[in-house]
Amino acid sequence: MNTVETIRHSTSHIMAAVVKQLYPDAKFAIGPATADGFYYDFDMPSPLSEADLPKILKGMKNLVKRNLPFEKAEWPKEKARAYFAERGEIYKCELIDDIPGDTVSIYKTGDFLDLCKGPHVGSTKEISAFALLSVAGAYWRGSEKNKMLQRIYGTAFETQEALDDYLRKLTEAKERDHRKLGKELGLYDFNDQIGPGLVLWYPKGAMVKTLIEDFWRSKHTAAGYQLVYTPHIGKSTLWETSGHLEFYQDSMYAPMQIDEEEYYLKPMNCPFHIMIYKSQWHSYRELPIRYAELGTVYRYELSGVLHGLLRVRGFTQDDAHIICTPEQLEEEVIKTVRFSIEMLRAFGLNEFDIYVSTKPKEKAIGEKAHWDEATAALKKALESNNLPYQIDEGGGAFYGPKIDIKIKDAIDRAWQCSTIQFDFNLPERFNMFYIGSDGAEHRPYMIHRALLGSIERFMGTLVEQYKGSFPVWLAPVQVRVLALSEKFADAVEAITGQIRKAGIRVEADVRAEKIGFKIREAETQKIPFMAIVGEKEIADNVVAVRMRGRKDLGTMTIDALVDHIRKESQQLTT
Amino acid sequence: MNTVETIRHSTSHIMAAVVKQLYPDAKFAIGPATADGFYYDFDMPSPLSEADLPKILKGMKNLVKRNLPFEKAEWPKEKARAYFAERGEIYKCELIDDIPGDTVSIYKTGDFLDLCKGPHVGSTKEISAFALLSVAGAYWRGSEKNKMLQRIYGTAFETQEALDDYLRKLTEAKERDHRKLGKELGLYDFNDQIGPGLVLWYPKGAMVKTLIEDFWRSKHTAAGYQLVYTPHIGKSTLWETSGHLEFYQDSMYAPMQIDEEEYYLKPMNCPFHIMIYKSQWHSYRELPIRYAELGTVYRYELSGVLHGLLRVRGFTQDDAHIICTPEQLEEEVIKTVRFSIEMLRAFGLNEFDIYVSTKPKEKAIGEKAHWDEATAALKKALESNNLPYQIDEGGGAFYGPKIDIKIKDAIDRAWQCSTIQFDFNLPERFNMFYIGSDGAEHRPYMIHRALLGSIERFMGTLVEQYKGSFPVWLAPVQVRVLALSEKFADAVEAITGQIRKAGIRVEADVRAEKIGFKIREAETQKIPFMAIVGEKEIADNVVAVRMRGRKDLGTMTIDALVDHIRKESQQLTT
Repeated sequence: MNTVETIRHSTSHIMAAVVKQLYPDAKFAIGPATADGFYYDFDMPSPLSEADLPKILKGMKNLVKRNLPFEKAEWPKEKARAYFAERGEIYKCELIDDIPGDTVSIYKTGDFLDLCKGPHVGSTKEISAFALLSVAGAYWRGSEKNKMLQRIYGTAFETQEALDDYLRKLTEAKERDHRKLGKELGLYDFNDQIGPGLVLWYPKGAMVKTLIEDFWRSKHTAAGYQLVYTPHIGKSTLWETSGHLEFYQDSMYAPMQIDEEEYYLKPMNCPFHIMIYKSQWHSYRELPIRYAELGTVYRYELSGVLHGLLRVRGFTQDDAHIICTPEQLEEEVIKTVRFSIEMLRAFGLNEFDIYVSTKPKEKAIGEKAHWDEATAALKKALESNNLPYQIDEGGGAFYGPKIDIKIKDAIDRAWQCSTIQFDFNLPERFNMFYIGSDGAEHRPYMIHRALLGSIERFMGTLVEQYKGSFPVWLAPVQVRVLALSEKFADAVEAITGQIRKAGIRVEADVRAEKIGFKIREAETQKIPFMAIVGEKEIADNVVAVRMRGRKDLGTMTIDALVDHIRKESQQLTT
Repeated sequence: MNTVETIRHSTSHIMAAVVKQLYPDAKFAIGPATADGFYYDFDMPSPLSEADLPKILKGMKNLVKRNLPFEKAEWPKEKARAYFAERGEIYKCELIDDIPGDTVSIYKTGDFLDLCKGPHVGSTKEISAFALLSVAGAYWRGSEKNKMLQRIYGTAFETQEALDDYLRKLTEAKERDHRKLGKELGLYDFNDQIGPGLVLWYPKGAMVKTLIEDFWRSKHTAAGYQLVYTPHIGKSTLWETSGHLEFYQDSMYAPMQIDEEEYYLKPMNCPFHIMIYKSQWHSYRELPIRYAELGTVYRYELSGVLHGLLRVRGFTQDDAHIICTPEQLEEEVIKTVRFSIEMLRAFGLNEFDIYVSTKPKEKAIGEKAHWDEATAALKKALESNNLPYQIDEGGGAFYGPKIDIKIKDAIDRAWQCSTIQFDFNLPERFNMFYIGSDGAEHRPYMIHRALLGSIERFMGTLVEQYKGSFPVWLAPVQVRVLALSEKFADAVEAITGQIRKAGIRVEADVRAEKIGFKIREAETQKIPFMAIVGEKEIADNVVAVRMRGRKDLGTMTIDALVDHIRKESQQLTT
């Protein structure tokens, strides 16, 4: 049986074979299978467009029908290099140079020959259900310093049914695309004059961000966390002590020279929280200490991999560090997992996949006994909350094991949210201690955790989960008051003021447009409630209320409307 | 009549003359009068301490008694340079080199001769009331790249009475010092491993910051502002367009190189808010638009001038930009001034000094008619609010006139808070426009404003104003529950939980310490309320309540205590 990855990888070769027929001048880069399809990058004399895809797809179908075998050969590297160099395949030559050993493997399908590790299907007939999806620019090796290539995305499945199902979800996903919705709903965007991967939060998105953060702060103080605020930059010596310059520098921004010192934008908040801890001595009686910060961190990512709010360069981690005694470890993990799930549920996210990642085989610090204890505490915490989990063997960070919680959204996609990570490293490096009941100094345990992950990525997740129709408590505008015609503008402004005073987020639409147009626009803006005001409503001292999705709620007094909105706002938060 | 500045400057010379007698190896730097005294910087073979001051003061009194005249002479620069060089006075030589022209003026008092512009008193007898205050290290020219000198601070007044009054206030000010109180109350501090001028907000300070910011956000949304969030860095091209690289680079951090582009930490939020404005077209109907952000900005300051929270390198501006039509200008200024005063009063700050700063004589952009209109709008706004103001002729920024509001604190010190500034510059530079009722593009007016100034400096102001005893609504801990003895620990924990559930910020003290000690400690921590729990209170289901300042409030039920605290919390905010 072929795996779906093998089928996809082979389909990618077939696509490349057709591109070679149609565009003999194309140079070939890489064409791997991905989590849900495949792509192939080509260096073309002129850019491709989606209009070119049907022609390529037709060629692929013809090739498949011919039932060509996939033939593998081992070539001496020199031979392979000479073969590709002769044909101007500079990317293949570069790839060959990077492969260790004396030989490379080659796959041949019909006239098409490619550098490839395999495996592949036996022959093209084993491929039946495939589609081409889109064309995009992609830098060679993901770096904008390199040439922009043409990438064709496609996918393949074992059955036509599975493919159809995937394509249906893809259409659905396109409608939910948070980048598109972010612009349409005035939530956020990026700006070339500022820089890639740096989010500008527009007023409506900023309101949602504020609501999320207010909720987060109140939940955290109630759960015994202490809020802190720390600077965005720190001296290089701090990052040397923490080990970030040794292990993490590639993800850090370049340093700034200030008064003969180098300063770095912070990629993490940990060293700052540790400095707060170390600003005084702590007795075991004060532990656990839980420092929480909505800390804005900056991490360098290649511009080619940036993706809306999901992969950015600057983001707000909903970060906290729990510093505790070894005896408190298990209870703290249990509390954190429970808190995490409770937090995600408050946002209507109820489907989770949970992973426990254990000690990496290579490069890991800390004693085995500590790893065992910490890993056991993680597992026990999940079990005592009746939460099933999978083991990611060896998938922990070098400094400790971790729990990752991914949520599944309305169309079954997984999104990384919470992470709860042990750290054996920083307490050592920073010589953290507490005074035990024996009067001696002891090393505390430290847990890093982010429940939502980052406010930016979480916002992207929420927008896609709700297709922009936020729950009432998170909606940037909860109700729009519409004037049936321009002459009711004054009444609408008065009603809007009255609703605003009651603490409801409201706007007015008094434009000289038809009411149907105004309703459609409020629907497009995904505003939960509309209150329509005309002559009859004014006479009766009511408004005609509609809910988004075109549900007519009849007429209500302003007070009744305010009560109704308040009730709807509470559903998820309690 | 001598001005107090002249008296102070002359006293500084007398001090220097005595230092020369006592420490013949000292080299002399500068010795100016300041807003409330004078200082002189010396390069000493060994550091001075406050123990040296009485001796110097005694020498000064002797000199004054001798009634020595202050004699002025004009020397050719060459002669002055030779004179000071011969005596090893390297700082004086450096100063002479910086003075334009061919001659410099020299003052002589007894044997002491100094490079000095003057003016001075006629003779030492005109100086009667003076004191020496402290010794501190100070870098030559304020830069840590230079040698650390010894600075002696002193002051002088026209009368002994004025001096005594000043010294009384100084003692008071020392007790209010926000740097000392910040440490004692666990509010905030700085850390050498992170860098000078970068604030670490400890949990208690972070709670006050959060309370201020929550209040600020709610007042701003109610006042028709829209919250936004923007990145902390931006490309150099953005700062070129804005003019910051041309006019403000000295106050900016060094650039970071990212993907062949230079990025700068933001010293101001304006360009980002403008990018949000420009992300879509705006009709005159949408104006005024008011974007508000608690924006964290970084500005380079010489390490020598950093001063607690009052002068830092990174701070949170309570920033907003109002974009309006010329017709809306006056009303917007009126609203902003009123909002500003209302905001400051909410924090118990009721004494103001207001300044209107007008067009600078040199370097100013924008047409005269616009300056006149804008300046008139500022004045009218103050007058219509019955707020007296002073004119700071020519004190405006190069880009527009401004209103500054300084508050006066409990001991009559002035603190810069609100600033409301016009900007003729950025709307031009960024080509901002709105579509007028005529369908054509028009240039909007823009107002920058910060009401509290920065959260950091405002926090410093509040701590000094209240000597750390925050109003109840801002107190990081509103009540501490004290166990009369250890055996009531469980009851205290239960009561603490009950009070916390009611939304009151509470902590418990169940340590095995005497109750008198616990009360004193709660007083030192300036906690507004103490609830004491012993056998009798438990039997009666009450707590014995004390208010800070040792006011006994008798016994209350928990509910009554919660109600009382809630009532006390509302005083200033309504």
